[in-house]
Amino acid sequence: MTAPHPFGLHRSLDPPGVLPQVARRLDATPRALENEIAVSVRALSIDSASFRQLRETETATKESVRDQVARIVRERGKMQNPVTGSGGMLLGEVAAVGTAHPASGTLAPGTPIATLVSLTLTPLHLDSIGVVHAATERIEVSGTAILFARTLFARLPEDFPEEVALAAFDVAGAPAGVLRDARAGDTVLVIGTGKAGLLCLAAARERVGAAGRVLAVEPGPAAAERARALGFADAVFQLDARDPVAMLDAIGAATNGRLADLVVNVANASGTESATVLCARDEGAVIFFGMATSFSAAALGAEGLAKPTRLSIGNGFVPGHDRTALDLLRRHPALARAFASLSGGAPA
Amino acid sequence: MTAPHPFGLHRSLDPPGVLPQVARRLDATPRALENEIAVSVRALSIDSASFRQLRETETATKESVRDQVARIVRERGKMQNPVTGSGGMLLGEVAAVGTAHPASGTLAPGTPIATLVSLTLTPLHLDSIGVVHAATERIEVSGTAILFARTLFARLPEDFPEEVALAAFDVAGAPAGVLRDARAGDTVLVIGTGKAGLLCLAAARERVGAAGRVLAVEPGPAAAERARALGFADAVFQLDARDPVAMLDAIGAATNGRLADLVVNVANASGTESATVLCARDEGAVIFFGMATSFSAAALGAEGLAKPTRLSIGNGFVPGHDRTALDLLRRHPALARAFASLSGGAPA
Repeated sequence: MTAPHPFGLHRSLDPPGVLPQVARRLDATPRALENEIAVSVRALSIDSASFRQLRETETATKESVRDQVARIVRERGKMQNPVTGSGGMLLGEVAAVGTAHPASGTLAPGTPIATLVSLTLTPLHLDSIGVVHAATERIEVSGTAILFARTLFARLPEDFPEEVALAAFDVAGAPAGVLRDARAGDTVLVIGTGKAGLLCLAAARERVGAAGRVLAVEPGPAAAERARALGFADAVFQLDARDPVAMLDAIGAATNGRLADLVVNVANASGTESATVLCARDEGAVIFFGMATSFSAAALGAEGLAKPTRLSIGNGFVPGHDRTALDLLRRHPALARAFASLSGGAPA
Repeated sequence: MTAPHPFGLHRSLDPPGVLPQVARRLDATPRALENEIAVSVRALSIDSASFRQLRETETATKESVRDQVARIVRERGKMQNPVTGSGGMLLGEVAAVGTAHPASGTLAPGTPIATLVSLTLTPLHLDSIGVVHAATERIEVSGTAILFARTLFARLPEDFPEEVALAAFDVAGAPAGVLRDARAGDTVLVIGTGKAGLLCLAAARERVGAAGRVLAVEPGPAAAERARALGFADAVFQLDARDPVAMLDAIGAATNGRLADLVVNVANASGTESATVLCARDEGAVIFFGMATSFSAAALGAEGLAKPTRLSIGNGFVPGHDRTALDLLRRHPALARAFASLSGGAPA
C-alpha cells in the first residue's frame, strides 16, 4: 500500500491507483490509516435501483438479497452493485480517527454519523448481516467502513428522526446553493416543491427578504397546496414545467416581464430545461439540481433561445450544507413537519 | 396568426403556440412580419447526424438527398430531419428587416449572414435546390428563411473565408466565456485543444496576463504540439483527460498543489468530468462546453470528491461572441492560420 491519498487511491486494488469509485475491488482492511476514519457500520441504505435489481436476482436465482450483499462486499471490498453500478450510503458510529485526518481532534469515537457519498467508493468489511428491510431498502449489518480525508459524512442530529436527517442531507446542496447565490431583493423561482423544493423556498425567503419575491411552480395540486400553506412563496403556480410557453406566461405576468434573477430547478421530470431557462432574466442565473437534467438540452436550449443566462450544474456539496439544511428545519417548525411527512423512506 | 412573438411561437402550426423547435410544422410564409427578418437563403449546412441519415435513406429507398430535403421542408416548414431531430444552419443575405425587429436600422438588406441557431426552429421556404456537396454536408438552395426577434445570427466577415468564420461562430461561446470569467493573475486550464480549445487558450492568455498561468491538456501528440507552438500556454500536457489520477498529478505538480482557478472543458470525449472537477481549486470554477458532458457524472463526481467547486454548463450564447471570436483570430495571425487549417468542413 502506498502513502494514503485523500481521495483513497491507495485502497484501489483492481486496477491499482484509480479513484475508488472506478475500481473493481478495494482494500477494505478494517483499520484506519493516519488520514482515514474507521466507522462501525450498523446499517446500509441501499440505492433504489440497486435494491430492485438485488430482489430481481433473488427471484431469478434464489440467492437471497442478504447472500448477494455478503458476496458483493466480500468480492469487491465495497457495496457496489455490479449490474446497476450504484451503491447507497451507510449509518454507523465513529470507531477511530487517524491523527492526520482533517476531523482529528473534533470528531470523537462513538459519534453517530451517516456518509454523504456513495457506497461505491467506500471500503467496507462486513462481519455479519442482519435484517433486510425491503420497505425502506435498508439492511442491518455489523462491520467496518473506511472514510478518506475527502469522504463527506455528517453527524446525525439528536433532535430529528434519523429518516428526516437523512432526507435533509440527501437534498442539502440545493438550499445551500440558494443561500449562497440569492441576494436581498431578488426574485427567486423554485421549480418543483418536493423535499428539496420546500427547503429551497425557505432558503430563498430568508435570503431575498421582504423586498424580494419568491415564486414556485409545481404540477401536483396537493404538493402545490402544501407549498402555499408554508407561506414562504409569494405565489405557487400549479403548472407543468415541461410547458415553456405556459411557464413564460405565468412567470412573465407575475414579474411584469422582468422574469427571475435566480431559477432553481429541483424537478424530478425530464424535459423542463427550456422552461427553466426561459423564466430567468438574460442577466440572471439558473441552477439545475434535478438529476433528470439533460446537459445538451440545457446548453442548446439557452443558445436556441438566445438567452445568455448563466447555467449551473447544482453541486450536491457546499461546505456545511448538512448543518445548513437542519438549521432551516429548526428555524421553521411547519417546514420541519411538512418535510418529515415526506421523508418516510430511506434516501438514495 | 396571432401577434408575432419574439421566440416565434406565432409560426408554430402543429401544435399551435409551442416553441418552434418543438413544433412538427411551422408557417414558413416567406414574408417578414414587423419583428422578423426575411433572409434570402443560398445554402444549408446540414448537421452531420442528419446528413448521414439522409444518405442512408437515399441508399435504402432511392429517394435522393435533394428530394428528401425538398419533401421535409415542404411538409414541416423547416429543415428538421424527422429521424435524427437535428437541423444545421443556413447562409444567405438579408432580404427584409421588420420595423420592430431589434436590428431594424442597423442591418441593411443585402448583408451576408449565417444563422447561429438550429434550422430546427427556423421557418424555411425553398424555391429550388441546387448542388448537394457531400464532403462538406452543404446544399445549395434558393429560398427564404424567417428569423425571429430572438433568433441568433452573425454577419459574415469580409476578411475570413466563409468556412473559417462559420467554424469560429460554432465555438464562439467558449472563448467568450473565458474572457468573461477569467481574471488577471488566474491559473486557467483548458482541456482539449481543438478549434474551441485554441480560441480558449488565446482568450485565457489575454485575460490572465503575464502574472497568470495558462495550462492545457490534450491527448493527441500533433494537436498538443500545435497548441504548444502557438505560445499561449505556459505548459501543454499530452494526457488523456479520462484519467483523473494522471490529470491531478500533472496539474497539481504544475501549480504546486494550488490547482486551477478556472477549468474549461472543451473535450470531445466523454468520461472527463471527474478529472475536470479534480483539477479545479475548491473555490474555483469549471465550465463544461463539451457536448459529451454527462450532467449526473459532473454533479455526482463533484459530490463524491467533496469538491465545492462551481460547475457551469457552457452557454453557447454570450452577447457579441461572434465578433469576439473573430477579433481573437484577427489579433493573433498564427492562431488564425492554425484555426483555418482545422476548419475545412462545415460546422454542425
